[in-house]
Amino acid sequence: MAKILLAVIMLLHVSSSSSSLPSSTVLDPLFLYIDEHQNEFVQRLGEWVAVKSDSSDQMLWGEIQRLLNMTANRIQEMGGQVEFADIGTQQLSNGESVALPPVILAQFERDPNKPTLCIYGHLDVQPAKKEDGWATDPYTLTELNGNLYGRGATDNKGPVLAWLHALETYKATKQEVPVNLKFVIEGMEEVGSDGLDELTRQRKESFFSDVDYIVISDNVWVSRRPALTYGTRGSSYFFVEVDGPKLDLHSGVFGGSVHEPMTDLIALLGSLLDHTGKILVPGINESVAPLTEEERELYKDIHFDLEEMKKPIGVKSFLQDNKEEILMARWRYPSLSIHGIEGAFSDKGSKTVIPRRVIGKFSLRQVPNMEPVVVERQVKEHLQAVFAKQKSPNNLKVTSSVGAKPWVANLNDPQYIAGRKAVKVVFGVEPELIREGSTIPIANNFQEVTGKSVMMLPIGGHDDGEHSQNEKISRYNFIQGTKLFAAFFYELSKLQKDP
Amino acid sequence: MAKILLAVIMLLHVSSSSSSLPSSTVLDPLFLYIDEHQNEFVQRLGEWVAVKSDSSDQMLWGEIQRLLNMTANRIQEMGGQVEFADIGTQQLSNGESVALPPVILAQFERDPNKPTLCIYGHLDVQPAKKEDGWATDPYTLTELNGNLYGRGATDNKGPVLAWLHALETYKATKQEVPVNLKFVIEGMEEVGSDGLDELTRQRKESFFSDVDYIVISDNVWVSRRPALTYGTRGSSYFFVEVDGPKLDLHSGVFGGSVHEPMTDLIALLGSLLDHTGKILVPGINESVAPLTEEERELYKDIHFDLEEMKKPIGVKSFLQDNKEEILMARWRYPSLSIHGIEGAFSDKGSKTVIPRRVIGKFSLRQVPNMEPVVVERQVKEHLQAVFAKQKSPNNLKVTSSVGAKPWVANLNDPQYIAGRKAVKVVFGVEPELIREGSTIPIANNFQEVTGKSVMMLPIGGHDDGEHSQNEKISRYNFIQGTKLFAAFFYELSKLQKDP
Repeated sequence: MAKILLAVIMLLHVSSSSSSLPSSTVLDPLFLYIDEHQNEFVQRLGEWVAVKSDSSDQMLWGEIQRLLNMTANRIQEMGGQVEFADIGTQQLSNGESVALPPVILAQFERDPNKPTLCIYGHLDVQPAKKEDGWATDPYTLTELNGNLYGRGATDNKGPVLAWLHALETYKATKQEVPVNLKFVIEGMEEVGSDGLDELTRQRKESFFSDVDYIVISDNVWVSRRPALTYGTRGSSYFFVEVDGPKLDLHSGVFGGSVHEPMTDLIALLGSLLDHTGKILVPGINESVAPLTEEERELYKDIHFDLEEMKKPIGVKSFLQDNKEEILMARWRYPSLSIHGIEGAFSDKGSKTVIPRRVIGKFSLRQVPNMEPVVVERQVKEHLQAVFAKQKSPNNLKVTSSVGAKPWVANLNDPQYIAGRKAVKVVFGVEPELIREGSTIPIANNFQEVTGKSVMMLPIGGHDDGEHSQNEKISRYNFIQGTKLFAAFFYELSKLQKDP
Repeated sequence: MAKILLAVIMLLHVSSSSSSLPSSTVLDPLFLYIDEHQNEFVQRLGEWVAVKSDSSDQMLWGEIQRLLNMTANRIQEMGGQVEFADIGTQQLSNGESVALPPVILAQFERDPNKPTLCIYGHLDVQPAKKEDGWATDPYTLTELNGNLYGRGATDNKGPVLAWLHALETYKATKQEVPVNLKFVIEGMEEVGSDGLDELTRQRKESFFSDVDYIVISDNVWVSRRPALTYGTRGSSYFFVEVDGPKLDLHSGVFGGSVHEPMTDLIALLGSLLDHTGKILVPGINESVAPLTEEERELYKDIHFDLEEMKKPIGVKSFLQDNKEEILMARWRYPSLSIHGIEGAFSDKGSKTVIPRRVIGKFSLRQVPNMEPVVVERQVKEHLQAVFAKQKSPNNLKVTSSVGAKPWVANLNDPQYIAGRKAVKVVFGVEPELIREGSTIPIANNFQEVTGKSVMMLPIGGHDDGEHSQNEKISRYNFIQGTKLFAAFFYELSKLQKDP
């Protein structure tokens, strides 16, 4: 793959410059419209951010539905047909079943001479509370120093809106939309896209049958330069439960005489990785695809300033010493993060309890050629072996969820070429060809189920802080990103006619 | 000490039986009154349990004051003088200072021919919520199968009331109270008895100057047999804070490239003890007082049924194989319990965050000849050494609090002899001579500051579950305990006249 890729890069350096002239007559009016309407676009993002579409809280699913309705109305106003596809129910812990928010499947009148592009996005967000450490109210879009702060600004409301605004721009400037567009917009991405995989399977021969390309803009650049993303890591989430006593115990009365579940759990969690970040679960590292010299070359071109990357996250150093190794650690090697413990004392202050039941939680980011099912078995066997050495009478239960597979795309695919051209037109530079450390299961799922080409075309900045406090998208990225999407429609159609 | 103690035991076996006859004429009417008024006593315990005097929540300090007032009224009705002694203020995290609930110092008219007994107790409780796993509302005293369930039933509202009821019984049956009584009743015990030590120091030459004996009933038996307690473990609480990134990070984007505070913390906590419960902090085990053969003998007489001890707490086995070793592990050896982590993900479900700052919490129970100041230094040095090996750029901060010293009393003291006689009279058996694994700093503080004899005379059952869900005291223990206290007054006065 890597050799083909380098050839493609060289080809593009020639072709993109020679095709820049005819583009401008089509694209300039679009770009002008986008610049002139940017305040409206930002205002609409504010309306979307104000909707508390936090999918982790079932009480807020109504808000997700409200935003789905707002989005459907917008698509219908532009001539699209919208179906709210039912994706079933979720069983709550009290046994009750609740309907999941539906998925928007939208399409426009089809021209058989145009390529068909299907755009994926999501409207739900991660939890956010002012008291988590936000400088501004997370649900009030706030512009400061050119940045638009708010939960979902970059993940993923901003990009979804940018797609809609790109389409609006064609309509408003009375230019023919050069591609057939379809939309898949869901509201459960942050909690694992329940039901979407099944829906894709069901609609493989209908909705997806005439789709040529699937594009996703649900990640961020790694530097100040725009990027195309050709891979994501997979992920499995593990729950390590240790329980023993039938009730919490007083550490004074019983301390020293009972096998404490927390002691067992800390030993289990401590066995997972060493201080260099190396995963100690046998078999994991052995299954990672070997690094070739050609692949290593790809990393050299990526603009990644170590000091600049430290600043927004406030770390003094990384686990690796140089740019290439840091990027590889994030993109092409697995990682394991321990997120916390349920059931132990977690409030402020002091409490001298021995918790009766504790659940350690960690996730494992996966890369080719790891198989989630195999990883799951390796982790469970490892933990059971460590636990056996503890000689504890307590009970160990290891469960896991999500299990999304890692994804790598073919960089030689036409939509990658179109994407790179569009970046060149809008930003004047070649995009960085990157992978994504985080998990967007949908990329791999779409590719596996539909067999179509999938690309990730991010518009978020490297310091947007998705999932974190003070999430933002810059006004620059939001508006130039809208232009990028408009240009991408054009380049994709042009490539079809004149490859 | 142990040789003297065995001699005393033999002496008592003779003397207690010969003195049983004259006791009955005094004690029988008292016991009859207690039996006949037991429902009133239980009802009053219900009123006390209903007061949410949870000292860990500053918003509930008003409830502590309310219960202090109720208690003061009761003492005054019986002819006592009550002073609400000011113990200063506590600084809140917002910088504000709030007055601590005062301490009741109560006394009655003094007869110089009688010994003076000072009774200590506390009215505050540990936190309790129904949803923590209580079968009944923790603040509604509920009688089931002879047990009185409610937060504070055994720790320490029941015993404090039993002392007051014992006194009431003398008054109501028009018998002269055979000892001079004083009371020290506080409302901040569960959060470290702030200010009480200083108050004791201040009143050493006044309130405490004519006190002969200080008695505390704030622990439980270890079996179905009554007990006298001659030692407690000390305790220090440690906070291990690791912080690094300036905000929470996405584990997909950054996992594998940053030194995660949780990885550091898990390694630190994992270095504290091994799976046998052995503390791995250098120097700790070396400072434990060596076990003598004579001391080992003491443990043989204690009725402790392994199977019966497993049942109420629901463990399959203990860290040790036999009764003696289990009791020693709880009473005369140090222990370390990891209680939890603040700042990590602790809710139900899954969240893929890398927490920016986490605080591990553990406590270390201490025994003679450990010195809390030395232990603190040993723990800090150990953690710093482990952290240095992690080669992490994160920041480590270890702080500690409480630091109560362990306590051991002289079993040959007159009040221990009186206590054992009283147990024999009420329960018909010799008490077990036990130590307490948990920390009651006040025992050692009283002994160190006042130089007076201190005894712990528990009335709570071994399965009362203090600090835990479904805390209770049995009606039997509550009522017989009241008799025990009444008999103890008598035996103490008799010993003074006829030792």
